[in-house]
Amino acid sequence: MLPILHLNGYKIANPTVLARIPDRELMSLLEGYGHKPYLVEGDDPATVHQRFAAVMDEVIDEIGRIQHDARGGEASERPRWPLIVLRTPKGWTGPKEVDGLPTEGTWRSHQVPLAGLRENPEHLRQLQDWLASYRPEELFDENGSLLPELAELAPEGNRRMSANPVTNGRTVLEPLRLPDFRDYAVPVDSPGTTVAEATRVLGTWLRDVIRNNPTTFRLMGPDETLSNRLGAVFEATDRVWEAETLPTDEHLARSGRVMEVLSEHLCQGWLEGYLLTGRHGMFSCYEAFIHIVDSMVNQHAKWLKVAAEIPWRQPIASLNYLLTSHVWRQDHNGFSHQDPGFIDHLVNKKAKIVRVYLPPDANTLLSVADHCLRSRNYINLIVAGKQPALSYLNMEDAALHCRRGLGIWEWAGNEPAPGTRQAAGPGTGASRALPDVVMACAGDVPTLETLAAVDLLRQYLPDLTVRVVNVWI
Amino acid sequence: MLPILHLNGYKIANPTVLARIPDRELMSLLEGYGHKPYLVEGDDPATVHQRFAAVMDEVIDEIGRIQHDARGGEASERPRWPLIVLRTPKGWTGPKEVDGLPTEGTWRSHQVPLAGLRENPEHLRQLQDWLASYRPEELFDENGSLLPELAELAPEGNRRMSANPVTNGRTVLEPLRLPDFRDYAVPVDSPGTTVAEATRVLGTWLRDVIRNNPTTFRLMGPDETLSNRLGAVFEATDRVWEAETLPTDEHLARSGRVMEVLSEHLCQGWLEGYLLTGRHGMFSCYEAFIHIVDSMVNQHAKWLKVAAEIPWRQPIASLNYLLTSHVWRQDHNGFSHQDPGFIDHLVNKKAKIVRVYLPPDANTLLSVADHCLRSRNYINLIVAGKQPALSYLNMEDAALHCRRGLGIWEWAGNEPAPGTRQAAGPGTGASRALPDVVMACAGDVPTLETLAAVDLLRQYLPDLTVRVVNVWI
Repeated sequence: MLPILHLNGYKIANPTVLARIPDRELMSLLEGYGHKPYLVEGDDPATVHQRFAAVMDEVIDEIGRIQHDARGGEASERPRWPLIVLRTPKGWTGPKEVDGLPTEGTWRSHQVPLAGLRENPEHLRQLQDWLASYRPEELFDENGSLLPELAELAPEGNRRMSANPVTNGRTVLEPLRLPDFRDYAVPVDSPGTTVAEATRVLGTWLRDVIRNNPTTFRLMGPDETLSNRLGAVFEATDRVWEAETLPTDEHLARSGRVMEVLSEHLCQGWLEGYLLTGRHGMFSCYEAFIHIVDSMVNQHAKWLKVAAEIPWRQPIASLNYLLTSHVWRQDHNGFSHQDPGFIDHLVNKKAKIVRVYLPPDANTLLSVADHCLRSRNYINLIVAGKQPALSYLNMEDAALHCRRGLGIWEWAGNEPAPGTRQAAGPGTGASRALPDVVMACAGDVPTLETLAAVDLLRQYLPDLTVRVVNVWI
Repeated sequence: MLPILHLNGYKIANPTVLARIPDRELMSLLEGYGHKPYLVEGDDPATVHQRFAAVMDEVIDEIGRIQHDARGGEASERPRWPLIVLRTPKGWTGPKEVDGLPTEGTWRSHQVPLAGLRENPEHLRQLQDWLASYRPEELFDENGSLLPELAELAPEGNRRMSANPVTNGRTVLEPLRLPDFRDYAVPVDSPGTTVAEATRVLGTWLRDVIRNNPTTFRLMGPDETLSNRLGAVFEATDRVWEAETLPTDEHLARSGRVMEVLSEHLCQGWLEGYLLTGRHGMFSCYEAFIHIVDSMVNQHAKWLKVAAEIPWRQPIASLNYLLTSHVWRQDHNGFSHQDPGFIDHLVNKKAKIVRVYLPPDANTLLSVADHCLRSRNYINLIVAGKQPALSYLNMEDAALHCRRGLGIWEWAGNEPAPGTRQAAGPGTGASRALPDVVMACAGDVPTLETLAAVDLLRQYLPDLTVRVVNVWI
């Protein structure tokens, strides 16, 4: 990647900060970001084009040298990747002045430098002069067709920017080789009698997802992989880290499939970009802090919606969030760490784009995660706890429950057994009798609290019939 | 303000980036941010304390010189404000090792360096040694009371950090001197017959708010003050701008009450801080992009909720958003600029904290803005269009409508006039008869569309009685 900062000096109605600080400060800033900046500036098109071409040649050679050294194992320290600052006037080659006010090189060339062409012959003349400055007579023949020798300059096939497979799901997305999630199940002989940390169990499966897919899966997070109890992944990989390391560091390496930085914005941006290249990933985050990327996920949701309407757009892997350290268990971190609002933010999106999963325990989390990593073109949100919590379903029941999306938990209620069902009344035929109370729950802690409430009901009102329905999607 | 970057090297389970890039890059970065950085580093407490004190003296003198030059008018260019980088070990003076693993100077000293004290006598001993290292016998007398000569070191009154009036609404918030919004009304002789740009009208009132309150009101925005048609404010003030200026620039100055930067995060942060100092402001933004600050407004809402429960916390001015360029009129910018979701985000907050206003026209916007700038401890969201739109209410009706929060627009429906009302049925007494259809609307464009629908109903179904209710809060 070669970043090019086009410093044309203005935003909508103001100069930009980077265009108005001294060159020395700008170069310091870019060096502080770890780059080696090259400045190309000017306002004569022919001269700037030549200079820019020369600098492009130079930096592409430099990128080649960095890649060569890295691949030959000769790189001893983090490379300083080149970056080009291109400083040209805003509205370059457009009208110099409109109505006596300077236009080229000012914010006035933003969006519509010449307005009211129908009523203003002077503006129309300026527009004609401007367009004529591109010398169309040298570009088109007498029929208005592009000259063949110019048309031939355009690249063909996958070399066209719009057809580059690197930006279109690699054209054919390769599915992940997923280990069988059933092999990672926690044993559940009887519901609600054993305890597991759901995300810690998931970590063992993710470890093997990474082992099986060493170049096509990444786990992003704001330095919370261990805190979110996914630490088993470090048996298979490291955190990618290019800066200095110390002997006391653990799991930091030049290459690694875990990308941690304490910026949810960066994690989101990295994952979006990685998915677009036809690969797969998951973003794990504390529930309270994921709101930081609200605006970014909005735009990704819009992109998914529009891309689905474009025939040549290939499917991409879903954007998978694992939110843990959730609102229910912020006892020690307090109010600052509480915010369950991201679910609400997502369910406002189109149903074709978003899915929300609330697995009640470790085995259902495994089943859900497997489902999400196989899905395409969704934004999947999984909310699951990391604290020790009861397991309710063995893996067979968990997988069945997940396929159904919701289910009656017979063992948690006290309805008459199916064999002894009474008809609920006229017209209900074979359907089961309605219980006195239906308790519905979604998510691990609400499920626990619901079961505790049912326990009290059964103690204090033993004649009451209670049904428990668990909803996980 | 003196920024101090305490570079202790670690986050939760990882090193920080800024601690592991070369010093040269770190210094370049901070210089690129416009600062003059000072580095203080070490791991011997007594030595570092002395060095830090010396650097503090130096930079405070430097800040004084900058202020002196600026106030004497001698400052010729933007000052490079000092910044201190304090590089000390994480968990400094805590246990060096726990269970044979390095702790001080690593991420392991994050949060809980010594756990399980009840069961682990070795950890308990380490904790005792650690606490004893603070030499409590020199700090407390035999009764466990702090020695009087030490207690006297604490500052008194407003010099205590928690009692500093600068961080507590200046202790007594001064209300703004607001010009009478009625003087800025657009004339409306008959509803829906004249056109105004609501935000352009508001701009004339805001101009005079700024004139009347030259040191206590600021308008923040991501370079959209002109685009949002509040440009009249530039008759009274400028955009504050400290970098280079060119002769073609307009309304940029070293001091100004408009703060524009193309970062909604910065605008939000500036305004929150400014309000906490006991002053007032408004943040104008395109509706689609304000989601960027979702996470920040969440934390401000939490702060307002908790601050209301603390007896010594003084009220602060409300945080006022003006969202314009709204979802209804993104015809030319398209899908990327559409997102009405910030209302939804806000109405999830406690009703004691948030207010949402949807003024249907220019006069109601004036009345709403006046109300918001007088309110305290709220987050006020105003959504109003900037495009030419019909005016419905003259100022007297607008002010009345705004006090009521909603109202029946008699002129828009075709119910029998009040004098000819029929009772709706038994028990309704003096209440008016129910119409066949009630059309309710909120916001400028939905109001326009509703009125257009009523017009069609009245044309095609002249016998139908229709009532129009407009809701603005």
